[in-house]
Amino acid sequence: MTVRVGVIGAGMIGQDHIRRLTEVVTGASVTAVTDIDAGRAAQAAARFGATVLPTGADLIDSPHVDAVLVTSWGPTHAEHVLNAVAAGKPVFCEKPLATTAEDCLRVVEAERAHGRRLVQVGFMRRFDPGYRQMKEVLAAGSIGTPLIVHCAHRNPTVPDAYHSAMAAQDTAVHEIDVLRWLLDDEIVSAQVVSPRATSRRFEHLQDPQIMLFETANGVRIDLEVFVNCQYGYDIQCETVGEEGLVRLPDPAAVGIRTRGRHSTAVPQDWKARFADAFDTEFREWIASVAAGAEPTGPSAWDGYAATVITDATVQSLDSGGRLVTVDMKPRPAFYGGTA
Amino acid sequence: MTVRVGVIGAGMIGQDHIRRLTEVVTGASVTAVTDIDAGRAAQAAARFGATVLPTGADLIDSPHVDAVLVTSWGPTHAEHVLNAVAAGKPVFCEKPLATTAEDCLRVVEAERAHGRRLVQVGFMRRFDPGYRQMKEVLAAGSIGTPLIVHCAHRNPTVPDAYHSAMAAQDTAVHEIDVLRWLLDDEIVSAQVVSPRATSRRFEHLQDPQIMLFETANGVRIDLEVFVNCQYGYDIQCETVGEEGLVRLPDPAAVGIRTRGRHSTAVPQDWKARFADAFDTEFREWIASVAAGAEPTGPSAWDGYAATVITDATVQSLDSGGRLVTVDMKPRPAFYGGTA
Amino acid sequence: MTVRVGVIGAGMIGQDHIRRLTEVVTGASVTAVTDIDAGRAAQAAARFGATVLPTGADLIDSPHVDAVLVTSWGPTHAEHVLNAVAAGKPVFCEKPLATTAEDCLRVVEAERAHGRRLVQVGFMRRFDPGYRQMKEVLAAGSIGTPLIVHCAHRNPTVPDAYHSAMAAQDTAVHEIDVLRWLLDDEIVSAQVVSPRATSRRFEHLQDPQIMLFETANGVRIDLEVFVNCQYGYDIQCETVGEEGLVRLPDPAAVGIRTRGRHSTAVPQDWKARFADAFDTEFREWIASVAAGAEPTGPSAWDGYAATVITDATVQSLDSGGRLVTVDMKPRPAFYGGTA
Amino acid sequence: MTVRVGVIGAGMIGQDHIRRLTEVVTGASVTAVTDIDAGRAAQAAARFGATVLPTGADLIDSPHVDAVLVTSWGPTHAEHVLNAVAAGKPVFCEKPLATTAEDCLRVVEAERAHGRRLVQVGFMRRFDPGYRQMKEVLAAGSIGTPLIVHCAHRNPTVPDAYHSAMAAQDTAVHEIDVLRWLLDDEIVSAQVVSPRATSRRFEHLQDPQIMLFETANGVRIDLEVFVNCQYGYDIQCETVGEEGLVRLPDPAAVGIRTRGRHSTAVPQDWKARFADAFDTEFREWIASVAAGAEPTGPSAWDGYAATVITDATVQSLDSGGRLVTVDMKPRPAFYGGTA
Repeated sequence: MTVRVGVIGAGMIGQDHIRRLTEVVTGASVTAVTDIDAGRAAQAAARFGATVLPTGADLIDSPHVDAVLVTSWGPTHAEHVLNAVAAGKPVFCEKPLATTAEDCLRVVEAERAHGRRLVQVGFMRRFDPGYRQMKEVLAAGSIGTPLIVHCAHRNPTVPDAYHSAMAAQDTAVHEIDVLRWLLDDEIVSAQVVSPRATSRRFEHLQDPQIMLFETANGVRIDLEVFVNCQYGYDIQCETVGEEGLVRLPDPAAVGIRTRGRHSTAVPQDWKARFADAFDTEFREWIASVAAGAEPTGPSAWDGYAATVITDATVQSLDSGGRLVTVDMKPRPAFYGGTA
Repeated sequence: MTVRVGVIGAGMIGQDHIRRLTEVVTGASVTAVTDIDAGRAAQAAARFGATVLPTGADLIDSPHVDAVLVTSWGPTHAEHVLNAVAAGKPVFCEKPLATTAEDCLRVVEAERAHGRRLVQVGFMRRFDPGYRQMKEVLAAGSIGTPLIVHCAHRNPTVPDAYHSAMAAQDTAVHEIDVLRWLLDDEIVSAQVVSPRATSRRFEHLQDPQIMLFETANGVRIDLEVFVNCQYGYDIQCETVGEEGLVRLPDPAAVGIRTRGRHSTAVPQDWKARFADAFDTEFREWIASVAAGAEPTGPSAWDGYAATVITDATVQSLDSGGRLVTVDMKPRPAFYGGTA
Repeated sequence: MTVRVGVIGAGMIGQDHIRRLTEVVTGASVTAVTDIDAGRAAQAAARFGATVLPTGADLIDSPHVDAVLVTSWGPTHAEHVLNAVAAGKPVFCEKPLATTAEDCLRVVEAERAHGRRLVQVGFMRRFDPGYRQMKEVLAAGSIGTPLIVHCAHRNPTVPDAYHSAMAAQDTAVHEIDVLRWLLDDEIVSAQVVSPRATSRRFEHLQDPQIMLFETANGVRIDLEVFVNCQYGYDIQCETVGEEGLVRLPDPAAVGIRTRGRHSTAVPQDWKARFADAFDTEFREWIASVAAGAEPTGPSAWDGYAATVITDATVQSLDSGGRLVTVDMKPRPAFYGGTA
Repeated sequence: MTVRVGVIGAGMIGQDHIRRLTEVVTGASVTAVTDIDAGRAAQAAARFGATVLPTGADLIDSPHVDAVLVTSWGPTHAEHVLNAVAAGKPVFCEKPLATTAEDCLRVVEAERAHGRRLVQVGFMRRFDPGYRQMKEVLAAGSIGTPLIVHCAHRNPTVPDAYHSAMAAQDTAVHEIDVLRWLLDDEIVSAQVVSPRATSRRFEHLQDPQIMLFETANGVRIDLEVFVNCQYGYDIQCETVGEEGLVRLPDPAAVGIRTRGRHSTAVPQDWKARFADAFDTEFREWIASVAAGAEPTGPSAWDGYAATVITDATVQSLDSGGRLVTVDMKPRPAFYGGTA
């Protein structure tokens, strides 16, 4: 009954997911690990009683691996996912599915050729209780047809390696995915507006950025990305509809009154903020694999869509803020739905 | 058309009310002032262009005084109010109406003998927008029949002169009045529970205190009085009914996110917290006087009731926490209502 | 001592201001009224004991008028204000100062020629306690240098006469003024983004609209204007700075728990939401007039700036969303400040 | 590595815990089940692949059972726990540990005789993130020495079988346990105040009740128990200290603005409200068993203390509200701590 997972990539996020599959989610075990750094692989494997295998291909082929988790360096994702699809094994790929739209499409084509869904992409927001409540409210029609979404995605700080394009590729990509799902609608254009940059940034970085998206149904999205906001990790989302609005809650935290102020703590990182979402994401993925069912989370198509939309966003930023039309292929019927 | 007010007592609260009648409320002027300290009276009178009169009796008799405001030392209240009633002039008396139940009753009897209401007592909570909203919710039946009220009355600090009985006499008396009005019900017993005292208090002071009241209808009220809570001036009130509850809001204040916390300011004194209530209290009183109508605010009977209930509360405190039945006369039909 | 105000225009807003000057604000009386509809003028005058005068010019010239309030039809504002300036009398002009930038400039020039400020324009947001708290927070440097402002301005519904340009001219103009003051910065460009329109709108109306502004210092402002949001009158404003953010509070309202929900009421119109702001606006204006001082509220220059910025906004809307540079004259030193 | 759990009692709560141990918590399996209703045991066992054993004693003796979970009928708890202690096996006992103080003491004595802790009692509040945050705030000294705790425990409705004593035994017992732990202090007296009863109750039921507790350190606790409050399942807790207060948050839920109100959902039952607490409770218990360590959750002593305190509370209710001193044995050093 236990799903035996092989993990490609034993870096920080890989190790965290191994821990999750081993200590948090029932019904799974990690049987094999590989990493470009053999020592790191050995360490992770030892900790959880798994075998080290030399390459991703070996791991995918292993008879002791029922399902594959790809948490390696982004540029290697596509190859591993394609191998897993070729082997007919379910594969969970951390974002991004691939670093180029072309590679994403190769995965999409391979999966379609295979004939059933095997791929899930690691966008965890869809598993967050707040976003799920928001989707229920929209589905129930409580606020009417959505017209506008206001979002903010703030990190206290980012390391020096973070560059301006990553605001779309690494940060906004989460909103891009979750809003497509939330609205059941496709994003058709992107535009980046650049406010005065914070003096707390590195010289090379445009921070904050305001991203404007339009959907096929005409919904307008504004998203503030501010990755050096200093005060905390803060995710805001408000959907305005014809008859009302719905707003994501702040995480529950004790209220304190001292020294003239009432206050609550703001989370300091995404791990704390989305801990429940990550757990649910893997719990549901393992359950789908155990049931022999297609995954219900973000698909290869969603991975492709996120990539072409972030590409358009970066293109707008690079062009000084021009509105850029998203160049997306028609959605194959294979993937159902709208967005 | 302008109501000419004579003010007996030009101390801090008297001066603040003179300012209010002169600068905030329309339709009123302060024409005469008296004070036991002639210099203080002269100063206040000079500031607002009023005449100084030697005594309260002179002021009440003055043909330039339409209505009387009593803000002198508590023990002198009854005499001034009785004189005003004898003169047939509307009189606003800061709390307490009198320092003993007997003197309150003398005012009540004098007013009844006069045949129409002339006296309003200065309990300003009834004019606070939050309490008024709460009364509307109760009146609309939105939460059903009230069963319980939870209250807290906290001051950041009090001066050395504050003694344990003042927790009832000066502090809780505001809740006592406003809850009688809110519930349209009478308080029939009082009991004081003494928690561990704060080490931030003076030696002689029992602080905090928890006061328990029961009403004629069986509603139970718990009231925390904590006058050295350090962090701010904080008034809480929650009424629980058969179908729901209603809670007083905190004052609106900008929210700030910095250094890992979301916070709002807590008021630091009652003047800021109840500024609107004081303004409305005097606006409505002046309007009733100008219209030649009976006042609609707290009556002499309410002043009497507050005194006998605080007496019972102090008696419970002094007895080590015994439940004390409130010894109140039957409510005269003259005063209408229930409580 | 009493400031005798003459009122030009006795329509709904004029009558409300007459009531305010008469019943709410001390130190003022309304001595003269004029209106294009003589009957309406007579009615308003009778109610408050004022004299009816045939024209605005007569009223301005009256020896019984110390200060002028212009609440007539927008296109007549400039003429009345110019007459008041010519007469050297303080004048409070409801927004807009004039319907064209040219006419606003004529007022500015006349006032400069006169040599001291006489004109105040009726933007009441600057007198709202929430915005004032926000300005204090910014001034104290608590959130660092401002970078972004997110705003929403929602009305439950608007009448049929409301057309798309009014979203800028009548609605967003309040945010335009208050943000210039809040940030002490000038708006230099405007752009309108048009989301899917609500089906609850009239055919001719683009509603909602998202307006994007940039300031001289590079602050980016996004403002949702949604005048048929159905659920209430809702004003949101959040300023994001280098070290934190500050957010306007919702008005204080009792919280209720019934039938599975915790809820608070949302205001239903601007009169309720900004009642305090209007009162303070007139209280401070009358105080400045009584003191013979220059007004401290929005100036003729602010009226001009608001007009050219709304012009640019409407131009962007009409052009299908093009970014439009605000064509503003250099700010005269006469008006001090930055914005 | 896997902890093999045997479950005594396969009723609703037993089945929910079996599901939790099987599907939510890693490192555990349910290998044996017993129930007085053999069919129910068979059904539960079949669902999770466990063996049915005829009696609790058989289950405790089974070599396939490492640890015992007691979820049978309350009056049988003591016997099963004593058997588990005799067998030297870790045992998790749903509240109550026993239905009488005497039986609780028998468990305490047996465990002391055994020489190390084997027993954990199922008070899940200690594992709730909100209470844990509150304990951290208290431990950090952020609000100073605790003086008062205000609590409310509300259920929407209860079934007909619920009688007045259960307000203490089944409902308040959760606050009694969590407050002893939160304050690290012992409850020394109890008193029940009976407000007007809701007309939505059964005739036999005193609902709501207000319970007053005093601790050894003089902290005063007031707890509203209202089990037919209609509107939802609502848990409130506020601790007031010498320098401030800390308040339990409401669960995070999306905010909605429609039809003139801003609202959030209130949970409807304890399962939803404390789902995370239950999961953490079992995760930590299984981890302690797997590590061969003593349990860190509520001890047999805590089970005893809760029982004697609820006994005192019921005695006060039955006596018409008399203050009842808690008759508790001295705390054995074996159990460490204070409370």
